[in-house]
Amino acid sequence: MNHSALSVVDHQRALFADGMMLECGVALPRMEIAYRTYGTLNADRANAILICHALTGDQYVAERHPVTGRGGWWDMVVGPGLPIDTNRYFVICSNVLGGCMGSTGPRSPRDADGVQPWGTDFPPITIRDMVRAQKRLIERLGIDRLFAVVGGSMGGMQVLDWASAYPESVFAAVPIATAPYHSAQNIAFNEVGRQAIFADQDYKAGRYWEDDSIPARGLAVARMVAHITYLSEEALTRKFGRRQRSTDAAAGISSPFSDMFEVESYLRYQGSSFVNRFDANSYLTITRACDYFDLAAEHGDNLSAAFAGSPTRFCLISFSSDWLYPTAESRVVARALNAAAANVSFVEIASDKGHDAFLLDEPDFHRTLAGFLAGCAEHAGLA
Amino acid sequence: MNHSALSVVDHQRALFADGMMLECGVALPRMEIAYRTYGTLNADRANAILICHALTGDQYVAERHPVTGRGGWWDMVVGPGLPIDTNRYFVICSNVLGGCMGSTGPRSPRDADGVQPWGTDFPPITIRDMVRAQKRLIERLGIDRLFAVVGGSMGGMQVLDWASAYPESVFAAVPIATAPYHSAQNIAFNEVGRQAIFADQDYKAGRYWEDDSIPARGLAVARMVAHITYLSEEALTRKFGRRQRSTDAAAGISSPFSDMFEVESYLRYQGSSFVNRFDANSYLTITRACDYFDLAAEHGDNLSAAFAGSPTRFCLISFSSDWLYPTAESRVVARALNAAAANVSFVEIASDKGHDAFLLDEPDFHRTLAGFLAGCAEHAGLA
Repeated sequence: MNHSALSVVDHQRALFADGMMLECGVALPRMEIAYRTYGTLNADRANAILICHALTGDQYVAERHPVTGRGGWWDMVVGPGLPIDTNRYFVICSNVLGGCMGSTGPRSPRDADGVQPWGTDFPPITIRDMVRAQKRLIERLGIDRLFAVVGGSMGGMQVLDWASAYPESVFAAVPIATAPYHSAQNIAFNEVGRQAIFADQDYKAGRYWEDDSIPARGLAVARMVAHITYLSEEALTRKFGRRQRSTDAAAGISSPFSDMFEVESYLRYQGSSFVNRFDANSYLTITRACDYFDLAAEHGDNLSAAFAGSPTRFCLISFSSDWLYPTAESRVVARALNAAAANVSFVEIASDKGHDAFLLDEPDFHRTLAGFLAGCAEHAGLA
Repeated sequence: MNHSALSVVDHQRALFADGMMLECGVALPRMEIAYRTYGTLNADRANAILICHALTGDQYVAERHPVTGRGGWWDMVVGPGLPIDTNRYFVICSNVLGGCMGSTGPRSPRDADGVQPWGTDFPPITIRDMVRAQKRLIERLGIDRLFAVVGGSMGGMQVLDWASAYPESVFAAVPIATAPYHSAQNIAFNEVGRQAIFADQDYKAGRYWEDDSIPARGLAVARMVAHITYLSEEALTRKFGRRQRSTDAAAGISSPFSDMFEVESYLRYQGSSFVNRFDANSYLTITRACDYFDLAAEHGDNLSAAFAGSPTRFCLISFSSDWLYPTAESRVVARALNAAAANVSFVEIASDKGHDAFLLDEPDFHRTLAGFLAGCAEHAGLA
């Protein structure tokens, strides 16, 4: 699948013809936000849950993905009778601003004529810009206040930013496996991915779309290094250890690379399958937005100030083996919320699956999420 | 500096005109091992210490490097009055087989005519092959038994392999910041580096030397990702945090990439300076050798068997913040040595500098090393 094949999918979109002013000072002349909803909005418009997706996620939370054909990325969490129960809640998930699944981003047409994409001219965006675009979408859907905002990883940053920017619009917030800022190590890993993309000759200074090519090798390397950070060392050892497999193509040929460790084969698959569903310029834009994120810095280096007087009920969730966004970083948020006298629960889930645990079958996590939402629903007077 | 500029340095070498049979079954028709020595061999030939270098190290341990012009990589450890005291010991360090600082490797001429380099036809080598080449060198220097073998990281793997393969030739062994096998995570990070090299169009399927080019961008990305694993999260935060700098070239231009985090600038420098001193095919060969390393697997998955009846005195040293070769992996070696009733000390040095600590100013580490060697010298009857 090539670059243009990605474009033909007909995503469900909201158009904001007046565009949006970005934090960097550039005005997007028009903005589209692609989204999906599940369940039914109740008469009071009070049962909506916004789900914020992670770096390479998208709006297809709980249904077959139109590009990959695979199930939704949170099929285990969102659906009838599941922790985010679509029999009870109206669930919204939108593709982030800057993304490549239908929302305005580097692949979107720059002008009304719809021919030239933004490409590398797409302005730098921030997590706040993503959140402001989501706020516009929520208003368009006729919702003043969200019952809950939930998300993991970069999605968790959006949750924190929602609660800080629009406290009156967020009854409950669940930031999962996330942090209030990107650490030097987080930035370093993102930078390796960006440099891998820049190093690919097919990147063509970001103008690869002009001849319908993609910087597939560089983007695959970026995905591979990111993927290692999503897994714990224990999970890698359990899944692959030092097992080797011989590749058919190389059978019988003596070379240092004729046999492959299973972990290598797995990473190569992760890399090569990613390039068919993700735009390289979007990857650059969104990783940059993550690196910029520093909620305390926007409040005089005082994270508590970001949540002063917050009426929101928080449930912070971390995973014990997550080394990308370790528990210590959720603890920083918990302390800041406590200092702001906010209503906060903080749960560290024991898991050896690393950062990826929030996407996997973790019964304790799912019970925690379901229990917290049920308690909040009672407080909110939801039937 | 380009590929051929690397070749003109006149390294000190030992030539083994009869070559060497490798573990993979291929015979190297001739073999050269480049080395440096410091201090004086005593009359009994009993005061020799072999230092084994890490992945991207070389034989220039304690002197100005002829290519980079920088000081020796262990200037703080090796020298008169230092922990490895050249007033007392005769110190030898050789460039590993497969390397690119004068020892036979992918950049070496394949045939006696000296024109065509091996390139990607260089056979796969193992840590054991490196050690066997060192053994040949030691014999050439007229030494039957080494007073000590010392090395960190991949150098520590060689130390473990020396003690296992030639127990009677190793009086004392100091494996530092190392492991008895490469974990799935270690292999995964190496594989990202290899894929970054393969993705560079200038790699040219390994034949980049034919037109005097180097896959500089891919090799730089490989170095960047490896470099992150050498540092702890704490060290990155202390050194760089989230500080930004603007780049002159990009001043005044509004783009997501006009400002740079300091950690990005640092990584880019690490990447770009590396490509001037290291050969890409050597990087592929040596990372592969590390990935193959699994000392227990060679002994029926029983690491103790690798050291059965060992007369060697061991001092294992790890660093508390090393997540590439964590303390737990040294502990596995300590347990195996204890089970083999070997003479073993095990010291974990408290440090927040990560894996790199073995190359840095860590007084506790240096005291430990000096003290262990002094005690062994007494037992060995060295004056």
